[in-house]
Formats: sequence, structure tokens, C-alpha cells
Amino acid sequence: MQRKLTAEFLGTLWLVLGGCGSAVLAAAFPQVGIGLLGVSFAFGLTVLTMAFAIGHISGCHLNPAVTLGLVAAGKFSSSEAPGYIAAQVLGGLAGAAILFVIASGKPDFVMAGFASNGYGDLSPGKYGLVAALVCEVVMTAFFLLVICGSTSPRAPAGFAPIAIGLCLTLIHLISIPVTNTSVNPARSTGVAIFAGGPYIAQLWLFWVAPIVGAVIGGIVHKVVEGEDRLSVRAAESR
Amino acid sequence: MQRKLTAEFLGTLWLVLGGCGSAVLAAAFPQVGIGLLGVSFAFGLTVLTMAFAIGHISGCHLNPAVTLGLVAAGKFSSSEAPGYIAAQVLGGLAGAAILFVIASGKPDFVMAGFASNGYGDLSPGKYGLVAALVCEVVMTAFFLLVICGSTSPRAPAGFAPIAIGLCLTLIHLISIPVTNTSVNPARSTGVAIFAGGPYIAQLWLFWVAPIVGAVIGGIVHKVVEGEDRLSVRAAESR
Amino acid sequence: MQRKLTAEFLGTLWLVLGGCGSAVLAAAFPQVGIGLLGVSFAFGLTVLTMAFAIGHISGCHLNPAVTLGLVAAGKFSSSEAPGYIAAQVLGGLAGAAILFVIASGKPDFVMAGFASNGYGDLSPGKYGLVAALVCEVVMTAFFLLVICGSTSPRAPAGFAPIAIGLCLTLIHLISIPVTNTSVNPARSTGVAIFAGGPYIAQLWLFWVAPIVGAVIGGIVHKVVEGEDRLSVRAAESR
Amino acid sequence: MQRKLTAEFLGTLWLVLGGCGSAVLAAAFPQVGIGLLGVSFAFGLTVLTMAFAIGHISGCHLNPAVTLGLVAAGKFSSSEAPGYIAAQVLGGLAGAAILFVIASGKPDFVMAGFASNGYGDLSPGKYGLVAALVCEVVMTAFFLLVICGSTSPRAPAGFAPIAIGLCLTLIHLISIPVTNTSVNPARSTGVAIFAGGPYIAQLWLFWVAPIVGAVIGGIVHKVVEGEDRLSVRAAESR
Repeated sequence: MQRKLTAEFLGTLWLVLGGCGSAVLAAAFPQVGIGLLGVSFAFGLTVLTMAFAIGHISGCHLNPAVTLGLVAAGKFSSSEAPGYIAAQVLGGLAGAAILFVIASGKPDFVMAGFASNGYGDLSPGKYGLVAALVCEVVMTAFFLLVICGSTSPRAPAGFAPIAIGLCLTLIHLISIPVTNTSVNPARSTGVAIFAGGPYIAQLWLFWVAPIVGAVIGGIVHKVVEGEDRLSVRAAESR
Repeated sequence: MQRKLTAEFLGTLWLVLGGCGSAVLAAAFPQVGIGLLGVSFAFGLTVLTMAFAIGHISGCHLNPAVTLGLVAAGKFSSSEAPGYIAAQVLGGLAGAAILFVIASGKPDFVMAGFASNGYGDLSPGKYGLVAALVCEVVMTAFFLLVICGSTSPRAPAGFAPIAIGLCLTLIHLISIPVTNTSVNPARSTGVAIFAGGPYIAQLWLFWVAPIVGAVIGGIVHKVVEGEDRLSVRAAESR
Repeated sequence: MQRKLTAEFLGTLWLVLGGCGSAVLAAAFPQVGIGLLGVSFAFGLTVLTMAFAIGHISGCHLNPAVTLGLVAAGKFSSSEAPGYIAAQVLGGLAGAAILFVIASGKPDFVMAGFASNGYGDLSPGKYGLVAALVCEVVMTAFFLLVICGSTSPRAPAGFAPIAIGLCLTLIHLISIPVTNTSVNPARSTGVAIFAGGPYIAQLWLFWVAPIVGAVIGGIVHKVVEGEDRLSVRAAESR
Repeated sequence: MQRKLTAEFLGTLWLVLGGCGSAVLAAAFPQVGIGLLGVSFAFGLTVLTMAFAIGHISGCHLNPAVTLGLVAAGKFSSSEAPGYIAAQVLGGLAGAAILFVIASGKPDFVMAGFASNGYGDLSPGKYGLVAALVCEVVMTAFFLLVICGSTSPRAPAGFAPIAIGLCLTLIHLISIPVTNTSVNPARSTGVAIFAGGPYIAQLWLFWVAPIVGAVIGGIVHKVVEGEDRLSVRAAESR
């Protein structure tokens, strides 16, 4: 169990350091910055790389909403969830702390939003509460559909890290302008603690909406996949 | 059957929400927008992610032209096609509706084309009818060649979602300036209903051209693959 | 044999239509153009998609230099090479012709270089003959190293289309400014015929350098792979 | 052994030619340059392509820090390390030399930093020594976690080149503004020799930090993976 929690801690650290780090350090670099496209790839690749590296240890959730969505889908034990979520939140904080050490090592450093999530005035494109809520719920629901579907015993074996990582890239390509894209309470919490005040006041949305979306996604997966999924194995082909 | 249609509905919803959503919400975001390159990746990744998530349920067509092209290639039953197409069109509409809710949650929202397809004055680069027609026919034909070829029992197993998703990315990299890229009547219909008037008047092209191209692609595949493809051992290796 | 040649024709058509098409139609689109990064992905994805679609039919060379490099590596029969090369050149011309029909369907169309290759004044970055020659030889040599290595019986099975396609993307990321990147005489010939005069006069370089590089790459592969490569099979794991 | 060293030489040559080459030749090309996003993909794809091409020959380290991190993880023999490191450094120099020949074949060539790594005034974003040190240590540690984890017998077989290559892409997406991203002493040395004076004076950091990080990463991997990893059946499934 300890190895699993360490893996989740390290993986979520990497997600926040890599995803938020690319946003803070490189997105708006003069002339040659990576933009929202680069940030989208960075978030997705943190998950893709970790899913190959630690997927066989902890399942590589890196995200309290994913953990709870997998519980809803009947794919993860609810008794293990609290430990996972604690490790993920601590990992997100650690990632944000390392990012702070690096980012502040620059003469003209300004904290600004530190890649935090927000709605209304704190939304990159000034999207309101309803748009933010709908967006986070729907994005996380589809994220769980992809996570559950691509790890189904009937899906091609070994490819799930690619599907899941690039799904997170896709989600960012769509929704960074709306909420700066959370779909992950641990990622939101990690950087909001550093950004402070108004971002912390909005943090509730980035716990509620991703978790609601993830639970919906997990349940929809069960319906679409059908009862017969359990009888399928085809073990020899994997 | 109902699970298959639900899967096609959700998948096409995701294609329109993700592909058109990235275009509407993020393509031209000031300074750091994802541009046509980001939109191209978004469209491709909707298919890549869904093909891993629901490919084993419905085959993940998400596109009436693909469904009909697969019928032409002898790879899909024509009796199932109408249900699939209905589910895809409804999914496209649902995706556009969700996108509208999100996109309009911004003070200065303007509908504009809502990522609709068009030719002549409605083409992003003002390409005329003939160019648009040729482009959509040829792009969809090659899309079907890749779909049929990569799912052939002789192609490496499990990789088709990558080949097919990234083929859609490639098609967008080439042809967004020409027609805003359809190759998919359900995607075109979903957003045109919201964009209204002139876009609906041009919608016929984005049904006719992709379907003609897809049928050509399906037939060419049969010729290139050869008769002997049926005798190839298949099931145990996948 | 006819199916193989048809496959090579179609694949090379796709390479030129997709790669050069993205450059002509979308690279410099105002504000949101895909740039050289998008063009690099487009070229690579033409090969990645076709390698999954027709790799099991013709081997998916799509390139006279690749065909001759594989002969040098002892991986392809020299008697089949002339037919392959003819099909590739014709495919490149057909791709350029379709691109011309589409590209010229725009009121303010200007031919310019039509994505042709060149050195000196015709190099995008004004690189001279020696730089162009060295660049094309070295890039094609490493392209063949990757092609031969990733299709080795000792490399993981099924992944070669990803390695080879993304290698072509990488080559373009490096060398578009130098020669507009050829590494493929069929691609160079297809568009130069349309661009005319000065581009045709420089076409010799884009036959000589890629072929020399490919033969070097094929021979180096044989040395690095070692003699024992033939005794390896491990057929049961693929 | 000689074949292994030749493979490491060629692979590291490709890493420097491709990664640093894309930065020097294409990153800031007017209007359509590939930017830091393109450079990040280029570095990652050099490793992805070579890992498929020569992974079965030498393991494809291409990096003294990787070699030493694998020794720390108990995955590589320390007696082979000196030869590998020498081949990597020579390969990096050869790659930089070829790049110099190409890059200087342009009328208005200016050497500038030649894609060298640096901190303080030589950092692209003027990040100081501590930020640079922390960044290089942490990035290389996670790089080793991904390398060791994705090549574990319990990870899906064949995918490691994708995980590792795209991890290097991710690392560049985060950290080019900080140090121009090393995580690889051979890459740093190759170009610094050409850039000269001040870059050579800072080269020590890009040996010390990546090696320290890699050793930490290798040890952390051993802890997270657990003792039981050795008993996992392996050979027949790959």
C-alpha cells in the first residue's frame, strides 16, 4: 500500500510540476512560447509518461475525481480511496512548491494566478459560473469514459496510457480558456494555495464539478459497456 | 444494439464538442491560442480517445460517411447503418448544444460561424465550390483507406485508433482553410443548425461529398487489399 | 504485384497531397496558420497513417530513396525497385495535381514555390548548396537507420509506423528552413513540375542526395545490427 | 560491444543534431517558426525514433546521466558505463559538428548560443543558479523514473520508446526557459564546445545536476517498484 501511495504522490507531483509548470514557465515566453497548445500537451504527457511508469504499481490515478469515478464504475475499492486522495493532494502541493522554487528564481518573477483554475473574473476568457460548471462536469465525465473504456479487458491491451494521456491533452485544448482546465481537484488545490485569496475562494467548484462529472462518467461507462463485460477475458491475447 | 447506438451518440457528441469546441473556444485566444494546429489535434484526439474507449462496443464510426464507406467495403452491415447514422446526427447536435451553453457563458460571446463548414464566402480561405467538393471527396476517400487498411486483419493489432485518429488530425492540417474540414456530415449538421441560415444552405455539400468520397475509399480498399485478405487468420492474434 | 504498385501510388499521392498540401494551404494562414510545426506533423502523419493502412501490402516505402536504401540494406529485392520507383513518382505527380486543383480554387491564388525543394535563393532560409547537400544526405541516412532498425525482427512488433512517421516529422522540424526538406525524390519531383523552371533545374540534388544518404543509412544499419540479426526470430512473441 | 558503442554514438549524434538543430535552424524562423513547442517535440522524437531503431542493440541511453541512473537502479553494469559515456560524448560532438556545417551555410549566420545550456545571464529566461540546479535535478530524476518504470517487466511491452521519448518532450516543454534544458551532459557538452567561453564555464552544472538527479531517480524507482519486481515473469511476454 505504501508503494502505491508513494507512486500516487510522485505522479501527481509530476502532473502539477509538468502541466502547471509549462503554463507558468513557458506558455507566454516571448516570440517562441509554447502557448495553450504546448500546455495541453504537457498536461497530457505527464499522465501518459506516469501511466507507463507507475500504472502497474498504483493504477496511476493522480486525481481524486478519477479515484472516485473508478469507485463509481466498480473498478476501484472505496476503502483505498481516502489514502489515494490524500497522497494526490500532497503530491499536488509538492509539485506546486517545487514549481514555486524554480519560477521565483528569475529577477522579474510575478506570481499572478500561478496556473490556478477560476471562473468569472478569474477565468482566462471570463467565462461565468454556469459555463465553468458545465464544462468541468462534462469534461471530467468524458475523461472517465475514456479511462474506463480504454482499460476495459476488451480494449487493446497496453494502449490505455496513450488514450488517457492524450484525452487530457484534448480536454485542455478545449477548455483552458473557460476555467484554465481543472478536471482534477488535486491539481487545482496545489497551485491555488500558492496563488492565494480569490483562487482559494473558488476552489470548491474544482472539487465539486470534477467529482460529479467523474461519478457520472463512471456510471455511464457501466451502462455502455454492458453486463457481459465481466465474462470477457481473452487472456491469451494479452 | 442499444449499447452500440448509445456509444455512437456519445462518441459523436465528443467529436463535435471537442473538435468544434477547441475551434470556437481556444483557436484564436489572444497571444497563446492553439490555432489550426491545435484544432487539428483536437479533432483527431476525439476519435483516438473514443476509438480506444468504445471501439470494442460499436466500432466507433462517429460519422455517417464512415458508416456508409464501411458498408461499401463490405465491413459493416447495411441494415445497422440507419440506426448508427441517426445516433451520430443526434450526438452531433447534442455536442453542439453543450458547446453553445459553454461558449455563450462569456460576456462578449459572438456566434459567427460556430465552426461550421462552408465554401465560397463561407470558406475560411474563400475557396470555391469545386475546390471544396474535390477536397472533401479526396480527404474522405483517404480517410476510409486508412480506416479499412489499419483495421485489416493483416495490420498490426490494436494500433488502428492511433492511425485513424491521427489521420483525422492530418486531414484537418491540410483542409481547414478550404472548407473548415468536414469529412463528416454529423459534425457539419450539428453546428450548422446553431450557426443558421447560409450555413444550412450549404450543408448538402457536406453530406454528398464525404459520402461519395467514403464509398470510393471503401471500394478502393477492397481492390488494394485483394481477395486473399479473407483467408488470413485473424481472431487469435487480436 | 499490381496491388503493391497501386498501394505505393496511392501512398505517395497522399504524402505529397498531405505534406505539401498542408504547407501550401495552411502553413501561413493568417493569425492561426499551422506553421512549420504543423507541416512537419502533416508529412509525418501521411507516412504513419499509410504505413498502418498499406504497410502489410507493399511495405509502404512511398519514396525512391527508401526503396533503394532498403535494397542496400538487403531488405528489398532490387528487381522490384524500378516498378516501385515509377509508381512513387507517378503518385507524387498525382498528389501535386490534386493539390493544384484545390489550391487554385481561391480568388487570390499565387503559385510561388508550391512547396518545392531548393537551395541557395530557392532555400527558405537561403542555405547554400553544401549545406543543402549535407543536410539531405545526413537526414536521409538517419531516416533509413530508423526504418531498418524499427522494422528489425528484434524491435517491438507493430510500432514501426509510429517510429518511421514521427522520424519524418522530426526531419522536417530540423530541415525545412534549409531545403524545404526533401529526403524523397518523388515528393520533390511531384511539386517541382508544377512550380517549374528554377525548381526543376535544382531537382537533381533532391534525387542524388537522398539516394546517397539512404544507401549509406542502409549499409550502416547492416553494420550496427550485426550478423547475428538473421538468427533471431522469436516468432511466438509477435 | 563495438556495435553497442557505435549505436550510442549514432544515437547521441542524432539527439544533438535533431534537438539542437531544430532549435538553431527552425525555432525562430520568421512568421512560421516552430518555437519552443517544436523544439520540444524534436528532442523527444530523436529519442523515440532511436529507441525503436537501436533500443534492441544498446538500450538507447544516449545520455551519460541515463547510463549512470540505470547503474544506480541496478539495471546496467557499471563496467560498461565508461565506454557508453565516451561514445555518447563523442556522438554529441559529432552531431554539433554536422549542425555547424549546415547552420553556417547561410549568408547571415550568427553563432550566438548554438542551443547551449546556461543559467543566470545565459539562461533563456534569466533564471539563477539555484533555479537551474533544482530544475535540472528534478527533471532528470523524473526522467529516470519514467525510463526505469516504463521498461519494467510489469509495464506494457514495446511502449517504452513512446513513454521515454515523449517524457523528454515534456521536460523541454517545462524547462527550456530555465536552462534551455539539458538533463543530458553529452548534449550540453557537444554544443558548448562550439558556443565557447562562457558556456563552457557553466558546463559543470550540466554534468553535476543531471547525474545527481538521475541517480536519485534510479534509487527512487527501486523503492517504488518494490523488491518483488524481480520475481515477475518477463522474458516470454516480450
